[in-house]
Amino acid sequence: MLWSGWGDPAKARELPDQVKKLLGDLLGVRAPVAPAAALEEVRLPPIALTEALLGALAGVVGEQHVLTGHEDRVRHTRGKSTPDLLRMRAGDGGDAPDAVVLPGSHDEVAGLLELCSRERIAVVPFGGGTSVVGGLAPSGRDRFAGVVALDLRRLDRLRSVDTESMLADFEPGVRAPDAERLLAAHGLTLGHFPQSFEYATLGGFAAARSSGQASAGYGRFDDMVAGLTLATPTGTLELGRAPKSAAGPDLRQLVLGSEGAFGVITSLRLRVRRAPAERRYEGWRFPAFAAGSAAARALAQEGPLPAVLRLSDETETMVGLADPEAIGSGGPGGCLMITGYEGADVEPRRARASAVLARYGGEPLGEGPGQAWEHGRFSAPYLRDSLLAAGATVETLETAGFWSNLPRLYDAVRLALLGALGSPLVLCHISHVYETGASLYFTVVVAQDGEPVAQWERAKEAVNAAVVEAGGTITHHHGVGRDHLQAYGREIGPVGVRILRAVKESLDPEGVLNPGVLIP
Amino acid sequence: MLWSGWGDPAKARELPDQVKKLLGDLLGVRAPVAPAAALEEVRLPPIALTEALLGALAGVVGEQHVLTGHEDRVRHTRGKSTPDLLRMRAGDGGDAPDAVVLPGSHDEVAGLLELCSRERIAVVPFGGGTSVVGGLAPSGRDRFAGVVALDLRRLDRLRSVDTESMLADFEPGVRAPDAERLLAAHGLTLGHFPQSFEYATLGGFAAARSSGQASAGYGRFDDMVAGLTLATPTGTLELGRAPKSAAGPDLRQLVLGSEGAFGVITSLRLRVRRAPAERRYEGWRFPAFAAGSAAARALAQEGPLPAVLRLSDETETMVGLADPEAIGSGGPGGCLMITGYEGADVEPRRARASAVLARYGGEPLGEGPGQAWEHGRFSAPYLRDSLLAAGATVETLETAGFWSNLPRLYDAVRLALLGALGSPLVLCHISHVYETGASLYFTVVVAQDGEPVAQWERAKEAVNAAVVEAGGTITHHHGVGRDHLQAYGREIGPVGVRILRAVKESLDPEGVLNPGVLIP
Repeated sequence: MLWSGWGDPAKARELPDQVKKLLGDLLGVRAPVAPAAALEEVRLPPIALTEALLGALAGVVGEQHVLTGHEDRVRHTRGKSTPDLLRMRAGDGGDAPDAVVLPGSHDEVAGLLELCSRERIAVVPFGGGTSVVGGLAPSGRDRFAGVVALDLRRLDRLRSVDTESMLADFEPGVRAPDAERLLAAHGLTLGHFPQSFEYATLGGFAAARSSGQASAGYGRFDDMVAGLTLATPTGTLELGRAPKSAAGPDLRQLVLGSEGAFGVITSLRLRVRRAPAERRYEGWRFPAFAAGSAAARALAQEGPLPAVLRLSDETETMVGLADPEAIGSGGPGGCLMITGYEGADVEPRRARASAVLARYGGEPLGEGPGQAWEHGRFSAPYLRDSLLAAGATVETLETAGFWSNLPRLYDAVRLALLGALGSPLVLCHISHVYETGASLYFTVVVAQDGEPVAQWERAKEAVNAAVVEAGGTITHHHGVGRDHLQAYGREIGPVGVRILRAVKESLDPEGVLNPGVLIP
Repeated sequence: MLWSGWGDPAKARELPDQVKKLLGDLLGVRAPVAPAAALEEVRLPPIALTEALLGALAGVVGEQHVLTGHEDRVRHTRGKSTPDLLRMRAGDGGDAPDAVVLPGSHDEVAGLLELCSRERIAVVPFGGGTSVVGGLAPSGRDRFAGVVALDLRRLDRLRSVDTESMLADFEPGVRAPDAERLLAAHGLTLGHFPQSFEYATLGGFAAARSSGQASAGYGRFDDMVAGLTLATPTGTLELGRAPKSAAGPDLRQLVLGSEGAFGVITSLRLRVRRAPAERRYEGWRFPAFAAGSAAARALAQEGPLPAVLRLSDETETMVGLADPEAIGSGGPGGCLMITGYEGADVEPRRARASAVLARYGGEPLGEGPGQAWEHGRFSAPYLRDSLLAAGATVETLETAGFWSNLPRLYDAVRLALLGALGSPLVLCHISHVYETGASLYFTVVVAQDGEPVAQWERAKEAVNAAVVEAGGTITHHHGVGRDHLQAYGREIGPVGVRILRAVKESLDPEGVLNPGVLIP
């Protein structure tokens, strides 16, 4: 993973000429004056942890698993939001941990949390490091004796598979591609393919309520979690004896989405599926976003629901974002829908869904657009790096709401972005559908001004306020982190905030876990 | 509703002669010596609430909505578990509230909770009064200035319907048949049909995580709750802006299952479905429970899943419990499965499911057994009254687990019952199936000894311990109440209990809400 960008440097993508021209002509993007900092130039705070505390950490995990080198600290600084990358490119490593600790077992995690609570060391749980909401930047670090990144990479095992119950027990540090590889040996899959797929970990998916591109078919990640173990500074919580229960509140759902603020997930029992015998992805064109949206709603409410269902609005379709290879080459016009069917009986479901789509004015475009989308499904973050280098800020944000409220939400977010950024390019697609509503996923491109972080933060603040005001949820699958904190507080209200604080205090009385994240 | 039994007295069912004979011959059941008490004979505790406090309650809801009459108090005493009924039949009204209050709005509920918290009056939220786990019997009442039953019957409106989002906003006191009637006017249904259907309320379904007989098709009640309002002594919580969210823990799932211990649900936004165009219920015979269970598992994991799927074990099939009209007449032998299909395209789903069932050794029995089951689906509680009168204790209990653990769970519960009760009749069916597991629903019949409540409590305690020990959840759809409290504590462990206490203390610092229920 690039420390100041996304993914494998070998996969970096040069911007096509037509895109560069488009950026210049349309958005006034100009190459930035200063080049990006080199890794060794990143400015880090001095290590606050004393030798004695570093020794105590090593006492739990072993000396070789406490890292304090420059590169290790840089690579555990912040996540992968655009402001995160802009700061790193500017050489600002101010949020770096003092040390990176690598526990090798649940007991070591529990031991670390106990130690850190006792010694008031802030702990930032670190999986794939792909947070895009500021979930890895601790706040108020001067209140602590130091900050450690608790990197879960050594907890990388598939511990058992129960094919009768279709459950797999994983450690939390397993990266998504490894999980798929390990399950494939059993003919199984999770079917969880978010854009962060190549780097994100299972524990991170759970802690941040991830949702994948095929979640219509395989469910959100939170749907897959049948059981889990949470290590906290004050003890261990083990949950999940049955698919569903009436034994009180579903405490699993309190851990899911807790973003490392209540504890560290040390094991996950996940529902798995048979690896699909067949896959078929297709494109459809709709005359307008409203018509395509109605068709998507019909599939969600009456079925059959494809495993992948994504509908781009007119602008996103025009720009061609569903197929990053073809960006700027002009889309099919109208609104592009991608439908994907997976499993054993693709054809009858495809036929029934196609009939519904046609009834709502959809025009089939065949497998070409579907395959192009599938080919490029994880490319967008690579493209962002090139755009940042070219002087454009590109960032994504997302929300969800009930169907009848979706047009209001769509307008509110667009208006907020236009108001805050002048004339950005705003693209949108429906990324996930449910019977009662859907999520809207926005991509924004704007020319960087002299203070691109502040420029984006103004826009983000305006959008957050607009989403809350328009009745949407502040995030459908990115999480709260620090970037959504204030809006989240408005969303759940003072009683909701009080509940979170009570739980936090009961599990983490010293407040060392991911301080500043999640709890408004 | 009968105060000491179930349902409409006009629907009371005399036991068929062959059942009486069976009970006598097989279980040694003899008619009890003492006849059941009459309503006016029920012994109630003196009213502890002072005139001043009764006046303060009246100040919130109006004088006509504070009831202290003998019959009102008797009718709000406990729920409908067999021990509850045995106590009522014995004239024991010791758990009666001092008064019944009937709020007419969210604001009145909030006002009552504030008052009761300030004056330390225990509050037992009361919907349909159908709890079978001791959810309506407050404990430690001498710590309070009195106990009120907060009856939600006046909050009985369907407030709005959003057919685009397929959502309906209800008040919590709406009884299930009324909800169906109100929705039918819009061509809609909830599809929620638990055995308590005729009397239970929507708020109660939510507070106790109800699951219905058609939950395989329509989802559990907790799946239907898109939004809710919770009045607490310290403020109001409003949740639900989208079908799903990554905005922190799903706090809806903390309210669902909270059994009135965190607050009172004052509104529910529920996902609705189109009323089914067609319904078809059928019977299948399997040679053994294991074979039928494997078939049910195949439908849950590979589809298509019928809306209703129920598999009786050999004993339940023999007794004929799936068709209460035919009890004792001898079932079809083997294990009876009921499958029900509902919706617009019954036939293709039925055909595909039938092929799966046949592959697992199922033999189709046609619509006869399905119709008989449908006809008698709400009859069992009526039958219980007749059995109690005849001198038999009959009670149900249920659990759930993952598929691979189900045989262990089945054996453990049966063994515990045999150990505690000598030679009871133990019937079981799989009542709800999921991809990863299923629930087991047991019916127990035994001759009453001289102390039938204590007799049953011993059995229940043995089963609770066995369920926890065997790795199941202590309840799949009945709730925790008081009867599962200790086992629930073992299920979620000390950290889980600490979380519940922290939430409770934050919302209900005086502990007036349903004391003794839910929180171990």
